[in-house]
Amino acid sequence: MIPEIPGDDRGLLLGDGLFETLLAVDGRLVRPEAHLDRMSAGCAALGLPPPDRAQALALMGQALAGVSAPRVAVRLTLTAGSGGRGLDRPAQLQVRMFATAAPASAPLGPASLITSTVRRSETSPAARLKTLSYLDNVLARAEATGAGVDEALMLNGRGDVACAAAANVFWVWGGRLFTPSLDCGILAGTVRARVIEAARSMGLDVAEVRANPGELARADGAFLTNALIGVREIAGLDGFDLPVSPLTGRLAAAIS
Amino acid sequence: MIPEIPGDDRGLLLGDGLFETLLAVDGRLVRPEAHLDRMSAGCAALGLPPPDRAQALALMGQALAGVSAPRVAVRLTLTAGSGGRGLDRPAQLQVRMFATAAPASAPLGPASLITSTVRRSETSPAARLKTLSYLDNVLARAEATGAGVDEALMLNGRGDVACAAAANVFWVWGGRLFTPSLDCGILAGTVRARVIEAARSMGLDVAEVRANPGELARADGAFLTNALIGVREIAGLDGFDLPVSPLTGRLAAAIS
Repeated sequence: MIPEIPGDDRGLLLGDGLFETLLAVDGRLVRPEAHLDRMSAGCAALGLPPPDRAQALALMGQALAGVSAPRVAVRLTLTAGSGGRGLDRPAQLQVRMFATAAPASAPLGPASLITSTVRRSETSPAARLKTLSYLDNVLARAEATGAGVDEALMLNGRGDVACAAAANVFWVWGGRLFTPSLDCGILAGTVRARVIEAARSMGLDVAEVRANPGELARADGAFLTNALIGVREIAGLDGFDLPVSPLTGRLAAAIS
Repeated sequence: MIPEIPGDDRGLLLGDGLFETLLAVDGRLVRPEAHLDRMSAGCAALGLPPPDRAQALALMGQALAGVSAPRVAVRLTLTAGSGGRGLDRPAQLQVRMFATAAPASAPLGPASLITSTVRRSETSPAARLKTLSYLDNVLARAEATGAGVDEALMLNGRGDVACAAAANVFWVWGGRLFTPSLDCGILAGTVRARVIEAARSMGLDVAEVRANPGELARADGAFLTNALIGVREIAGLDGFDLPVSPLTGRLAAAIS
């Protein structure tokens, strides 16, 4: 069931809001608290009141109940609510929440990427949050789809590797694991955090870095992470193959 | 009357869409064709079908008819329509349009600005278009409001002067008129174009430039432009007064 939203909603009119995409397996949400923690932190960064957790869980549960599939993608959307004309938020702001759900695909095979021409603005709080102003990600993904590949690698304004259109990025080099640091204008992915933790508990050295794209291009292996795909190998970038690191499979297994 | 929008709308979920804000004076829209031209160009840049102009004018006319005020702000919103889960647009995309209207304020006095910490991503098509992914502008404006001033000056990723949160920027120096070039990640403002044309027809030299903020700070005068405010003097920037150039008033008169 799709909710109806008033046309004066600031999420609709100005992209003023946040969302989370959660995986549910066999009818159970995976780590909902991690997602609600991130949404609450995002609200604080945007100056919005935090989501009511009980209400958020109830909305997601209702949406989930309407889809019978072994793997379901549940999306929780929070907007800055209804407002008047213009950019300024109303003095009495009331956030609006709703949830939708749809069957999620089975885990996907290796991904091919191109580097997008659309860059992340690392100075924008929006680049570090999962906001409703997601058009740059849409455009980056459309570039990838138009080029016949699966995903887009996004650099930031400085030219550092940042992330994919809808995933975090990791690579392996010399037995170490690398991923862009949070100040590169990336989302603090829930699976990103789990992979870092799993790698460290396996005794691996993990470096959160500002890296130029050449470091990823000459990696011993690389992968994407997000809540729906978990860990997904990167097979190619800009038409060049990337090798497969055995660490990718070990980390995928460690977090599943 | 506020329309209801389905919760699977890509404008709501992903900021995938565009808008225009028009002034109407005594019940008549000011230069609607210029706004529809810009929206059509934005649709082309985003890979969306263009708005149906007759429908757009009818929607704006209906919204305008519901507000009795001498000056009315009419907003036309176009979204990428309903879609499925995720970033990818549906194969059969149908745009959605709606319009709202509200009384507009009388022309405003001089504006005080601060320089925002939020920068425009000049590599993003979204920075050059009036998109529904407007959160950076909301955040920049909120910084200004929080600092007790009227508007925020936004720089781009290179550090060039770009624009205000909801206006274009001009300045006068040595008898010449300056404004950021379109490749600075700015909106091609309808009033910006009229001011440039008016200035040239007055025999003024107009330079569209990449400029560092110091050039604006030491200007002989500066002003903002948008469809609602027309030409609005900038009285101060980051706590320092800017002088008043007689050209500001002449240009304001020339376009009104």
